[in-house]
Amino acid sequence: MSDARSESPTDRQHPDNTTERLEIFSDGVIAIAITLLVLDIKVPEAEPGELLHELGVQWPAYVAFLLSFTVIGIMWVSHHSMFERIRHVDRGLLFTNLLLLIGIAFLPFPTSLLAEYTKQGGDNSHIAAAIYSATMALIGLAFVAIWTYLARHPDLLVEGVEPANLRRSIRRSYVGPIVYAASIALAFISAIACYFVYAALAVYFIWGPSTRALLPARGRAEVASAEQPGASED
Amino acid sequence: MSDARSESPTDRQHPDNTTERLEIFSDGVIAIAITLLVLDIKVPEAEPGELLHELGVQWPAYVAFLLSFTVIGIMWVSHHSMFERIRHVDRGLLFTNLLLLIGIAFLPFPTSLLAEYTKQGGDNSHIAAAIYSATMALIGLAFVAIWTYLARHPDLLVEGVEPANLRRSIRRSYVGPIVYAASIALAFISAIACYFVYAALAVYFIWGPSTRALLPARGRAEVASAEQPGASED
Amino acid sequence: MSDARSESPTDRQHPDNTTERLEIFSDGVIAIAITLLVLDIKVPEAEPGELLHELGVQWPAYVAFLLSFTVIGIMWVSHHSMFERIRHVDRGLLFTNLLLLIGIAFLPFPTSLLAEYTKQGGDNSHIAAAIYSATMALIGLAFVAIWTYLARHPDLLVEGVEPANLRRSIRRSYVGPIVYAASIALAFISAIACYFVYAALAVYFIWGPSTRALLPARGRAEVASAEQPGASED
Amino acid sequence: MSDARSESPTDRQHPDNTTERLEIFSDGVIAIAITLLVLDIKVPEAEPGELLHELGVQWPAYVAFLLSFTVIGIMWVSHHSMFERIRHVDRGLLFTNLLLLIGIAFLPFPTSLLAEYTKQGGDNSHIAAAIYSATMALIGLAFVAIWTYLARHPDLLVEGVEPANLRRSIRRSYVGPIVYAASIALAFISAIACYFVYAALAVYFIWGPSTRALLPARGRAEVASAEQPGASED
Repeated sequence: MSDARSESPTDRQHPDNTTERLEIFSDGVIAIAITLLVLDIKVPEAEPGELLHELGVQWPAYVAFLLSFTVIGIMWVSHHSMFERIRHVDRGLLFTNLLLLIGIAFLPFPTSLLAEYTKQGGDNSHIAAAIYSATMALIGLAFVAIWTYLARHPDLLVEGVEPANLRRSIRRSYVGPIVYAASIALAFISAIACYFVYAALAVYFIWGPSTRALLPARGRAEVASAEQPGASED
Repeated sequence: MSDARSESPTDRQHPDNTTERLEIFSDGVIAIAITLLVLDIKVPEAEPGELLHELGVQWPAYVAFLLSFTVIGIMWVSHHSMFERIRHVDRGLLFTNLLLLIGIAFLPFPTSLLAEYTKQGGDNSHIAAAIYSATMALIGLAFVAIWTYLARHPDLLVEGVEPANLRRSIRRSYVGPIVYAASIALAFISAIACYFVYAALAVYFIWGPSTRALLPARGRAEVASAEQPGASED
Repeated sequence: MSDARSESPTDRQHPDNTTERLEIFSDGVIAIAITLLVLDIKVPEAEPGELLHELGVQWPAYVAFLLSFTVIGIMWVSHHSMFERIRHVDRGLLFTNLLLLIGIAFLPFPTSLLAEYTKQGGDNSHIAAAIYSATMALIGLAFVAIWTYLARHPDLLVEGVEPANLRRSIRRSYVGPIVYAASIALAFISAIACYFVYAALAVYFIWGPSTRALLPARGRAEVASAEQPGASED
Repeated sequence: MSDARSESPTDRQHPDNTTERLEIFSDGVIAIAITLLVLDIKVPEAEPGELLHELGVQWPAYVAFLLSFTVIGIMWVSHHSMFERIRHVDRGLLFTNLLLLIGIAFLPFPTSLLAEYTKQGGDNSHIAAAIYSATMALIGLAFVAIWTYLARHPDLLVEGVEPANLRRSIRRSYVGPIVYAASIALAFISAIACYFVYAALAVYFIWGPSTRALLPARGRAEVASAEQPGASED
């Protein structure tokens, strides 16, 4: 693989200017979205002596904050890990990445919806949880779309990323959207049950593939070697 | 062209420190403006069982979010593409760029206005759409102004940017402000009709000149070669 | 001057890691503060056919947005220009810079106050304008403090910054706080009159010293030569 | 120490790509959180002539803004100082750092709570101060956790960081969480008294260990030498 293309090894191992800029821009959007989440936690109006009680009533706001913060944090890890493998950006990748950013930037809204309507319970809580699940599933699909796009345009990748590794990344990227999509159905039974699924997925991603994918990437050169067939991570 | 100036080729192909800083600062403002758009989508107050209906009623908020997000995303692409060609910033460029940033940072307000008053319909929806169109037209004019300024100050550009290419960039940059300005008139007939114009313009920019301009820019050196008369992109 | 210190010319011309990080962090705070200003422009609640009128009533919000955006933009220019001359950060500089950032991050509040109470007129408009002027004067004093600190700690500067140039920078940095402080008194006569002073100061800074200070700084090496006594900018 | 590991001195002294990205991402979250604090200061609704009085009534909002701004500023200094010593990030460090960021991004909420309920006094003010203290204590514990993690994983550090220095950093990092935890008890006696503890801690950190830790770090190479046993900072 490396022979056919290697006129200039350094060029093939380093991201170009636009790729770096797109990663920084994406990092910016992700950092802002993750920090805006706190605006969903409202200061309650409490009668004297009632503040602790009023704060307790809005527990879903804290849990939703923690869940969304953790998931966006994981998404940042996944996004950075993905861009470690990209050296050039074309139009398709640019706008597929924009789709992903739309989803992440939108997330404070379903988070706010979930925080607000879980405590009310009933149909509204089901709708709120279903919308949260659906948003997460769509963001997950955007990751699938980017990985798939990269597999079909290997010229966008840094040298040494093996097709087998890409296929594994694609397979793994289906876990998120499939489980989140399934939780849409669960939402119509119980919104609270969905919280446990969200938390379980977060734990899975933290202990699982997202960070494992990240860890070998100690630099462009090592990405290549870490991705060789002999260095299987499974 | 290259002979007359080339005392130090590297200096003429790389942006100086202030130029890089200005691009990062602009990226920051654009990333924040694009992420603040979600604050315009309010959590509705819904009676039990009414959430889905209440969410449906505010459909203009989602469409306005998507439109403004996409357009700001395209503006980021255009802005980065423009700065790929700039190596030095002077006072005129600095403050013309500030004008552009004012427009982009202001955009969440007309977006919010459009989202709020489209559903009310009538005169107010016409005014809201007209203001949105006018803001977009002014932002487009800021792009025209920067391109025109660059054409008159070729010493600000990296080496190898051909006057013919600049003239083409200027011509193309008129498309946005002209169509948006025309949509001001349309706004007084129908706000909804304007949504279709906005969406059509977004599609045009995604498939059209903005990203085409971006793609050849794989590095300062290649900008130069991609811009040679023989490598016409039309 | 250059002889006494030049063990390692590159070390004395380039900012260290912490200095670069502090500039990026400051840029981030400034970019966020400038973009948050739009949140002060509220979507009015308008009866059918009344939107244009309601939007017109809140004209101070647009003017305040424009004024604060322009001034923060100028501050970014001044701040970057200042950091072009700094190569090392010590504790005093770190926390003097933090004082400046507190002022800039606080600015959306007096901007909002000015926007809200100018239209009410009377005593409240005087108070609002006085607070806006006072905030600006304090931010200006933070700039004076940093320049003065740098003059007393020349070891923090890149090589080649002449004391005469620093003294000129200090003298010029007094213009802002003095005029803003004077406008506190004016505020108690007329808030509207203050708008004209703010606008005049913005024009002064755009055409005047802030950007002139920036322009020669085409790179660390050129900073030095541009600051030589023979190359007076006055 | 340097002999045992020095296959490639440059690799051991410079952070890898992911480490740099994580620091930039963290800087972004911290810059946004610090700038969002201003949104907690509300424009009061004032009758004619009552603005100054109404602004005076909400003095806790200004003090809380100043305290949280200063503390987050100090945290940025500590965080940057810590990352000056890190050259590689693993999963544990990644998610311990995420815990820290959750705390910092959450801080605008307890700040808002403190601002709102100090003026009401009584039980609610005690609860608000206790929550503020507890949040700060938890953020402090996240710093302790990261330092401890680093001490147990010396392979993550740049070359030349002495165990003795790390142990000192760990010991010092306990000061914050211990004093903040103690102030939880004080909160139930007087919220105002807590303000003085918060202010005293801020002064301690500004004049004390946080910045002292930062100052020798004039570059990766000097970090190493500044940390040698002979160069004790105590």
